[in-house]
Amino acid sequence: MPNTANDPNKKSWLPVDKNSDFPIQNIPFGVFLTRDDVITIGTRIGNTAIDLGALHQLGYFEGIPLTDDIFLQDTLNDFISDGKKTWRLVRNRISEIFDHNNPKLRENEDHKRIVLFSLNEIEMQLPVHIGDYTDFFSSKEYAANMQSLLNEGEHDILPNWLHIPIGYHGRSSSIIASGLPVYRPVGQILPEGASTPILKPSQSVDFELEMAFITTDANLLGESIPVDQAENYIFGMVLFNDWSARDIQKWEFIPLGPFLSKNFAGSISPWIVTMDALEPFRMDGPHQDPKPLPYLQFKGKKSFDINLEVDITPENGEAVTVTKSNFKYMYWNMAQQLAHHTINGCKINSGDMMGSGTITGPMANSCGSMLELTWKGEKPIKMKDGSSRTFIEDGDTVTLRGYCKNDSVRIGFGEVYNKLLPSSKKIIK
Amino acid sequence: MPNTANDPNKKSWLPVDKNSDFPIQNIPFGVFLTRDDVITIGTRIGNTAIDLGALHQLGYFEGIPLTDDIFLQDTLNDFISDGKKTWRLVRNRISEIFDHNNPKLRENEDHKRIVLFSLNEIEMQLPVHIGDYTDFFSSKEYAANMQSLLNEGEHDILPNWLHIPIGYHGRSSSIIASGLPVYRPVGQILPEGASTPILKPSQSVDFELEMAFITTDANLLGESIPVDQAENYIFGMVLFNDWSARDIQKWEFIPLGPFLSKNFAGSISPWIVTMDALEPFRMDGPHQDPKPLPYLQFKGKKSFDINLEVDITPENGEAVTVTKSNFKYMYWNMAQQLAHHTINGCKINSGDMMGSGTITGPMANSCGSMLELTWKGEKPIKMKDGSSRTFIEDGDTVTLRGYCKNDSVRIGFGEVYNKLLPSSKKIIK
Repeated sequence: MPNTANDPNKKSWLPVDKNSDFPIQNIPFGVFLTRDDVITIGTRIGNTAIDLGALHQLGYFEGIPLTDDIFLQDTLNDFISDGKKTWRLVRNRISEIFDHNNPKLRENEDHKRIVLFSLNEIEMQLPVHIGDYTDFFSSKEYAANMQSLLNEGEHDILPNWLHIPIGYHGRSSSIIASGLPVYRPVGQILPEGASTPILKPSQSVDFELEMAFITTDANLLGESIPVDQAENYIFGMVLFNDWSARDIQKWEFIPLGPFLSKNFAGSISPWIVTMDALEPFRMDGPHQDPKPLPYLQFKGKKSFDINLEVDITPENGEAVTVTKSNFKYMYWNMAQQLAHHTINGCKINSGDMMGSGTITGPMANSCGSMLELTWKGEKPIKMKDGSSRTFIEDGDTVTLRGYCKNDSVRIGFGEVYNKLLPSSKKIIK
Repeated sequence: MPNTANDPNKKSWLPVDKNSDFPIQNIPFGVFLTRDDVITIGTRIGNTAIDLGALHQLGYFEGIPLTDDIFLQDTLNDFISDGKKTWRLVRNRISEIFDHNNPKLRENEDHKRIVLFSLNEIEMQLPVHIGDYTDFFSSKEYAANMQSLLNEGEHDILPNWLHIPIGYHGRSSSIIASGLPVYRPVGQILPEGASTPILKPSQSVDFELEMAFITTDANLLGESIPVDQAENYIFGMVLFNDWSARDIQKWEFIPLGPFLSKNFAGSISPWIVTMDALEPFRMDGPHQDPKPLPYLQFKGKKSFDINLEVDITPENGEAVTVTKSNFKYMYWNMAQQLAHHTINGCKINSGDMMGSGTITGPMANSCGSMLELTWKGEKPIKMKDGSSRTFIEDGDTVTLRGYCKNDSVRIGFGEVYNKLLPSSKKIIK
């Protein structure tokens, strides 16, 4: 079935600014609370949010096999579980409904009143219930920087890294929506030169510029997903800020990996951009040498050209863009990550989330974390108010943005932003 | 409210063998499929399974604030979410209903026909939907053995281990019920002396003798659970076999910890034994030196005397008990684990599972894994058919058992058993 929604010449009857991340060629999926306090699944064109639950009740998805309540849910999991063919049918249909040549909804004021919302009338939610969350470590530049930063003088990438898309399990309960506050975590920290740790709020809260993909149900326990089919099980992508506490991480992470230094918060952008929408932005990834094992060898373009940037905005201050990177720098691609994840028969479910790992590019100003950008604090970043940052300070808002752009269309992810608040020091009653 | 169900003199009108793990003082909770293909929450006395959904519909829980469908669910999550007071009210009431002095159900043949099942009429399910699963690493003997086995000659425990209940995130989708097969995982393995990995079925599939506790909803993101309140948020415990592939683990685990070497399977026993039932078996744990940081300091007895053992049964062969250990050997207790897990504000949900880590005791025959028992294969274990084992072979069934016992009562966990099958080599269509 053709992916008709990508036609670059198509225009919507809804207003779309020329720099919008959400032209009619995007049609992402999200979950929002409406002005009437109803939770629904929706999409967005320009600055208009569209209630897909209402559209479905009004019959606009006639002919597509969907259960009655598929969009009247507080997560996208069931819709994602319907599979790639259904995602495409629905996205193509939305594209038709909002095509400027189609008068059906355009001329129906009653329906429009029910279906359309301005962004200030809605409250975006986490788009999926994340059953399991895995974070990869797939940027070679980041792996090299971390090796060098954590083991003074040691610059060589670890021997397994060039063969394995290294990943580890994260904690689903820590994944939060854009806009929610993040509390500075308290944890065990080993002071410089000490042999005994102390408990205190982290002094090195960092962002990690990542993207994440959301999967559908793929396999049974014991089954593998071949690399050339893996993309069929990826619904779409979001921006992901994998908040990190570097001082807690340094003391805890040997030998079983990061734990409390990560599971205080990770935040994702609210709109899942489908792989169909990203299709025009495929490209070749970095050359892989040594050649990966056969189960990781792939054909075709599996990387994506997605511009990424991070702003830090001090409380009542002005934003500074601290880094510009690109998803294309990832050494291991998503198909390889998913093929690797299941080579042992590990079960993948609808709504699982897989983070890319920090996306660091080859330039000094394309690093995906403060740890790298300031080289462990040696090179602080200047803010517009004259202050400087080595890590994130209380009151700072960190904003990740991402978009693809070619001569005819711009497909974006919007943003994920969260403000860092002081340690809550709350304990349960 | 008193925990009346623990009265050691109480007897049930249901038959209970004197060596049963499930006297009327136990009253564990599980989920099963009945002979009528209905999923229900239940308990067990002796070899009789009891349908709590049916008991509730028949009015036996009158006076206890429970929703109508609380037991007619395929997981215990909502019941666990009702909190400790409700768990105790329900367990006390079950104890009254089955008390041999109480004729109400005993003399009602119609009700008994609806409520009672023999074990061969039911099929046990996973008792909870596990949102997040964390595995700790809390046996000092195991930590020392692993340090010595993985870094030849290096015997010292890592410096952070004595301060932190080290833990890492596992994958919830890999947790399976007792009785299901486990497939030998395929993965990247670095042959001895080689510099390039190959892909093949693991040659060192191992068990890990663990227990796990199941939590209730505890805190909001950003809130900590104090060590002296932590046990209020623990519903109960199960046996846990954390299946592991040592050769895959060795090649993949630096620097982010075990991943595919673990997430092919972990299996738990079907009946969750409540902390109330385990109350008589509290004891002091190992002396902790150095003294932990204040947030990990506790008063009272927080360890539990739970005998543990593991059998290996070859296909068509006889079982050999390969190790006997005890939960009391754990250096870090569950209250410390939960207090540590939330000191950074990490959110804990109903149904989350926290594994103890391999439970190795101080004796050579109390090791919790084949890797330790055979000291990396140097000392194979003899089977009764004359064959020997360094790791688990295809067709072997691994069975974990656990029970507490004092002069008046035995409270047990039953068992978790799974057979290892050859690599399925299945790929999805």
